[in-house]
Amino acid sequence: MNGAQALIRTLVDSGVDICFGNPGTSEMHFVAALDDVPEMRGVLGLQETVVTGAADGYARMAGRPAATLLHLGPGLANGMANLHNARRAHTPVVNVIGDHATYHAKFDAPLQSDIEAMAGTLKGWVRSSTETADVARDGADAVAAARATPGRVANLILPADVSWGDGGEPAAAVEPTPATEVSDAAIDEVAAAITSGEGVMILLGGSALREPALMAAGAIAAATGAQLVAETFPARIERGAGLPVVPRLGYLAEQVEAQLAGIKHIVLASAKAPVSFFAYPGRPGDLVPEDCSVHTLAGLGDDVTSALQRLAEKVAPGAEPELQQPWLPEMPSGELNAHAMAETIACTLPENVIIADESNTSGVSLPFTTAGAPRHDVLTLTGGAIGQGMPVATGAALACPDRPVLNLEADGSAMYSLSALWTQAREQLNVTTVIFNNSAYAILRMELERVGAEPSGDKAGELLDLSRPHIDFVPIAQGMGVPATRATTCEELAEQLRAAYAEPGPHLIDAVLAPLF
Amino acid sequence: MNGAQALIRTLVDSGVDICFGNPGTSEMHFVAALDDVPEMRGVLGLQETVVTGAADGYARMAGRPAATLLHLGPGLANGMANLHNARRAHTPVVNVIGDHATYHAKFDAPLQSDIEAMAGTLKGWVRSSTETADVARDGADAVAAARATPGRVANLILPADVSWGDGGEPAAAVEPTPATEVSDAAIDEVAAAITSGEGVMILLGGSALREPALMAAGAIAAATGAQLVAETFPARIERGAGLPVVPRLGYLAEQVEAQLAGIKHIVLASAKAPVSFFAYPGRPGDLVPEDCSVHTLAGLGDDVTSALQRLAEKVAPGAEPELQQPWLPEMPSGELNAHAMAETIACTLPENVIIADESNTSGVSLPFTTAGAPRHDVLTLTGGAIGQGMPVATGAALACPDRPVLNLEADGSAMYSLSALWTQAREQLNVTTVIFNNSAYAILRMELERVGAEPSGDKAGELLDLSRPHIDFVPIAQGMGVPATRATTCEELAEQLRAAYAEPGPHLIDAVLAPLF
Repeated sequence: MNGAQALIRTLVDSGVDICFGNPGTSEMHFVAALDDVPEMRGVLGLQETVVTGAADGYARMAGRPAATLLHLGPGLANGMANLHNARRAHTPVVNVIGDHATYHAKFDAPLQSDIEAMAGTLKGWVRSSTETADVARDGADAVAAARATPGRVANLILPADVSWGDGGEPAAAVEPTPATEVSDAAIDEVAAAITSGEGVMILLGGSALREPALMAAGAIAAATGAQLVAETFPARIERGAGLPVVPRLGYLAEQVEAQLAGIKHIVLASAKAPVSFFAYPGRPGDLVPEDCSVHTLAGLGDDVTSALQRLAEKVAPGAEPELQQPWLPEMPSGELNAHAMAETIACTLPENVIIADESNTSGVSLPFTTAGAPRHDVLTLTGGAIGQGMPVATGAALACPDRPVLNLEADGSAMYSLSALWTQAREQLNVTTVIFNNSAYAILRMELERVGAEPSGDKAGELLDLSRPHIDFVPIAQGMGVPATRATTCEELAEQLRAAYAEPGPHLIDAVLAPLF
Repeated sequence: MNGAQALIRTLVDSGVDICFGNPGTSEMHFVAALDDVPEMRGVLGLQETVVTGAADGYARMAGRPAATLLHLGPGLANGMANLHNARRAHTPVVNVIGDHATYHAKFDAPLQSDIEAMAGTLKGWVRSSTETADVARDGADAVAAARATPGRVANLILPADVSWGDGGEPAAAVEPTPATEVSDAAIDEVAAAITSGEGVMILLGGSALREPALMAAGAIAAATGAQLVAETFPARIERGAGLPVVPRLGYLAEQVEAQLAGIKHIVLASAKAPVSFFAYPGRPGDLVPEDCSVHTLAGLGDDVTSALQRLAEKVAPGAEPELQQPWLPEMPSGELNAHAMAETIACTLPENVIIADESNTSGVSLPFTTAGAPRHDVLTLTGGAIGQGMPVATGAALACPDRPVLNLEADGSAMYSLSALWTQAREQLNVTTVIFNNSAYAILRMELERVGAEPSGDKAGELLDLSRPHIDFVPIAQGMGVPATRATTCEELAEQLRAAYAEPGPHLIDAVLAPLF
């Protein structure tokens, strides 16, 4: 078999059986080899930001990596922003980046670029495969690197001649590396802080936001009065009725300050100590109060679930977590505004939905209105690189074909990766996209004020404005094969949401609302 | 004044007076400062690939760089593919890449990444500004680096505190570096080759494809029988009735082989020696025949126009170039196919149009059908990273508001940077976009065959197919504020083209044709 066939066989044997891709000439043998390994599913994205974002969303829900197929340096470049988000989510991703044949590099042909240097900025794993006989083993190493704890972005650069060469041999399958057990000493230190009688916040991230860990954390909170808070932008958080209530750390430094008032101990459970998302003139970047100590219960590579369970046994034996009761806001009516939208979404939320949330400014009410809604997962914008929501929703829907996916999208962010809609139509995915269409980069209007920049004219504001022309997402979605409707009232939105959930395949609702700022 | 104000003032003084951008929080002071320097125009792009591609198109036509404003590493990443194309076009670009405040980097906040390493892959100029007092000088250095000969991509990383800090001082304006004069010895060597009586090809690139150089090259060809050939993917070529006829070097190695039959001397005039765009099993990458010698008349940094004029004085004194006579194909009728489309476009071509050509496979006939059309410029896909056409057309229209712009787009490539249409609508640019809609990555169907990859099933073909669902560009364009129509016959296409040229502002024509492969 050739290198591509051996590589794909090895990926599949190691549990990587879906490949999001946008190939070019240098990847043609890899593409042809997809037909030789029937277990590998190929999914086409029409721009690499869709490809990599979908791989991120897939792995967040499936718990194992997808592969991507990218066309040399420019293909990787187009996918970098969502790989940045995947890196910040600690999502395992296996990128297969096609390259010129090894002997062709010296000609500096038009598509030549320094792929290794670019991939290196992801701080994950990078290797350029040089021999057909080794490429499958390189692929297995890539999977192993991606599936380390925490997950990483692994980049396997695949020269065309290594792919098409004969003499490929599948490599042994790779098992995921187990997370490290936390030491008793770490548990003891945290236990002492938690039982000190002083204010304690347990900051939960990564797997600590999944049910088993949440239940243990909830028991600890119930028994000790410690506050549970989730990291600001979780890769995946399980929430809703029947689970412990875990608010998220605020995005703005002022919010975090309020949340940390009276806290003397921050306990990190697979989370990082709070820092400001951006710097602001005259304000601190490190948000940990001076009189507050930080204790690490579990680092990013540690088994945080077992650590929380062991801590619970120690400080909260027999305690039961306080669970969120089912609760919904009153169904609103009349004109849509951001808050009414969040209420309408909560009131219509189906069981077991996956929410890919890139609603940004307009979505501030959502965590509150949906707190007691039927149980659901939320996937958030982990790395701040907008354009993540539509691709992540696409990948999540492929990972969980039996669950509905709700993609909440800001208009500005939606424009970054629109063509994900086409992939949703092609694969007939159960994704309902709601555009929070306020015709503005509303968050930047707020930030312009917050950073103290005072424009003296209209040009600055123009760069934050999306109203000239207004973007009409209904025909855009229809042009890519996704049925779409427009909602301007709560009643319309509710009706359209229910209809979208009820009918298989993708739908888009363009919810037009007044700008917040 | 603050750093941002001093920087923008310096850019304007150095001839950089348009800034394509998509800002974020870290760029808010730069955005506010746009109002303090009225000469700087801000143009919003809804994804950075539009921003950087527009800067490329602008500079190709204006002959001086635009600035871009990009939001940290992910903003740069999204713009990298079109910066790769700009690099390969030797286009001067001044990227201003916002970054966290200098003191904020240590917190590794979510948007932190290695911007310098990523920018470094463009092999241009990179500097991170560290002091407000120096930022204007850093900006001037960036302009100087960009305007070197050949042009480069200069990357100025601008930390938020350097931007908002007080004590900025405008720096002295920068003048472009003149190109280097070629030595007499080089002229003599080439003159000897050209008058040897053996087959000669003069390969023209860069400024050698503009009128003054073309006229000198044409005189040389007329007097000596040397063949003139343009590089495969020129950044900008002037052509049409009244200019010397210069066919382009083929994209496929087989075509180049035919063009080089009998050639014993290749003379490089601001072009590189021919290499294969991709590697193919068992075929050479270096396309220069073994018995052919290569002579450099002018390197990329040399004054190629003066070199060709001096060479003409030596080997062709008093000779006149053979000029293309006005000629149009017969106006076709009936169903659209790729060739009939190219004829229809030629027959309706307005005077002095700028063609941004990313028609790929479907556009193979265009160079022939338009050879005798009214004089025009063609801007091509220099680096092979698709998604360049719509942004380049956008920038070209801003550089030349009095000229019509025709953007010929393959459907697959169009999906890479769709939102350029919104910027065209916002700025009411005279861009007519024609989608060559064949519902396929047709070039890859051809390449799959050419590389000798033989798929054993349907999965490979699926990854090259855009027909499921068919993409309807009419509503997509309309949703972004661009009037759009569909053409399925030559008559419809001709009528719609004429109407689009006649009415100010952008238009899109979705020309639906049968797949070539």
